[in-house]
Amino acid sequence: MEYIIGMDGGGTKTTYAISCADQVSILGEPLEGAGTNPQIVGFQQMAERITLKLEELLQIHQIEKHQITAICGGFAGAGRSDDAEKARQALESKLLANGYHKYVSALIRSDLQIALKGAIPPEREQGMLIISGTGSNAAGLLRNGTMVKSGGWGHLLGDEGSGYAIAAAGLKAVVKAYDKRGPETTLSQLMLQTLGFEKETQLVTYMYQEQRDKSEIATLARLVSEAAENGDEVAAAIIRDAARDLADHVKSLHLQAGEYDAQTIVTTTGSVFKHMTQLRTAFIKELDERQLGIWTQAHGTPVEGALIEAAESVSLEKRR
Amino acid sequence: MEYIIGMDGGGTKTTYAISCADQVSILGEPLEGAGTNPQIVGFQQMAERITLKLEELLQIHQIEKHQITAICGGFAGAGRSDDAEKARQALESKLLANGYHKYVSALIRSDLQIALKGAIPPEREQGMLIISGTGSNAAGLLRNGTMVKSGGWGHLLGDEGSGYAIAAAGLKAVVKAYDKRGPETTLSQLMLQTLGFEKETQLVTYMYQEQRDKSEIATLARLVSEAAENGDEVAAAIIRDAARDLADHVKSLHLQAGEYDAQTIVTTTGSVFKHMTQLRTAFIKELDERQLGIWTQAHGTPVEGALIEAAESVSLEKRR
Repeated sequence: MEYIIGMDGGGTKTTYAISCADQVSILGEPLEGAGTNPQIVGFQQMAERITLKLEELLQIHQIEKHQITAICGGFAGAGRSDDAEKARQALESKLLANGYHKYVSALIRSDLQIALKGAIPPEREQGMLIISGTGSNAAGLLRNGTMVKSGGWGHLLGDEGSGYAIAAAGLKAVVKAYDKRGPETTLSQLMLQTLGFEKETQLVTYMYQEQRDKSEIATLARLVSEAAENGDEVAAAIIRDAARDLADHVKSLHLQAGEYDAQTIVTTTGSVFKHMTQLRTAFIKELDERQLGIWTQAHGTPVEGALIEAAESVSLEKRR
Repeated sequence: MEYIIGMDGGGTKTTYAISCADQVSILGEPLEGAGTNPQIVGFQQMAERITLKLEELLQIHQIEKHQITAICGGFAGAGRSDDAEKARQALESKLLANGYHKYVSALIRSDLQIALKGAIPPEREQGMLIISGTGSNAAGLLRNGTMVKSGGWGHLLGDEGSGYAIAAAGLKAVVKAYDKRGPETTLSQLMLQTLGFEKETQLVTYMYQEQRDKSEIATLARLVSEAAENGDEVAAAIIRDAARDLADHVKSLHLQAGEYDAQTIVTTTGSVFKHMTQLRTAFIKELDERQLGIWTQAHGTPVEGALIEAAESVSLEKRR
């Protein structure tokens, strides 16, 4: 029996999964390990952490190293081709030294590539994935297997429609209302109460504290969603704008790809799409009205995307 | 002859000026010294730097300490009343120890208060000052001598219409055009050329560099202004939005004060108003169309505002 391995490598966590080579289906539970972003831990450390964790994975499933035919991982911090090549070299020499077959290639992808690959149903040749969590970005899979991208510029240059952007817009609305530069909003009380503040001026200390994490601020987005659902017009406008901004990513992928139409599937992932019903509904409505595609639940996880890539490389190998 | 002293104390620089007590008119050139923001240098250090510099000022003009009847300073970092009180105590005891009359009170104001006081022509009882440099904020002087404020929330919560906000909007337009999420704009070439970059993705490294100063980014606002003047529609929209945002501050002061009308004078200061003709014109047009006031060149500088405050305290003292 031949097996393949998929990895989803982030900055703080890496997920490992194993599957039979001829049909992708994760065996047992995926295994979790430390972060493997090569920009953070370095390329050697990345390769070491991976090979060590693979020992554990193989042991659990009682699979021998020579049964592994392909290994594919998507890594945050391996998006640039020279970084991907460095990661591949580091990982392959480590695998070889650890007794894997010399023909086992380590396929290095970006975190976005495997997320996209996992999200698109396998029977489809093309489709899109729109991500909105703390930040926002989007990727489209083309028929020829390549990818187009939009967004991912971070909170100062972009991230429109993201949790951070929604939270920041909510906080801005609060200070505008305080200044009487904007309409009154229930967000004022909601934000202050949640943060344990008595007055708006305390938001300055909160927002500019050096250790303040963007993802912490992004959690306040749920208050905007809550206020919108309770009829607050200021909050509702922020949610509508965010949905439009996210649909703009879909439009961007259309323009870049030139092969999508109103029937192309659009999948979504991330906490914003997951938890904000009103935003998701508005987003789907935008897709419909602007004929940008058909919303579909994402098919699988990024680690499944890595497994699919691994499986495809094996079948490609066999066809040669 | 009796004299008064005015000070404009910032984080990196403090300006000192001396005038006769009965009519405010700066004698000679104002003197410059180190920063005196008490939040940065501490209250004792602030008092020491000031008294040392005053020795120099008096020596230049050959004025004796006993001829000084009032000292007033506006300080960044002394906006809160408890901080102002601490600054007053530190400065007064230092002055007393250095041979000034015991009745010389040290009047502590915020940097905004003296800027406002200096900007409004002395024959007027009321008026507004709108500031747009790296950040933006506004203040209004009421007939009873008190002040209303708007803005000053920093680049993550506000600063609408500021140099930073204009520059950031310009950079966002560039990455949107790159993504095909927004229209093409001449800003792309202008920004890249000025920063010495070959492609838009390099803007990420630029924008998120830890040591990157907000004021450095704000200088890119002039490119947006330049593009707007050359007919770029994306840039022109950014300038129009900024002018409207700044006029919103005026509207806010109206709502807070309740005593302004279409004839109230609105003064402006800061690099954005100074260097961007199109923005200033659009701002004045907004004031006119929304009946928010009459634009007037700011009368004097912040240090003159401090001198006026000092002079008023003397005449008030005499009337008692």
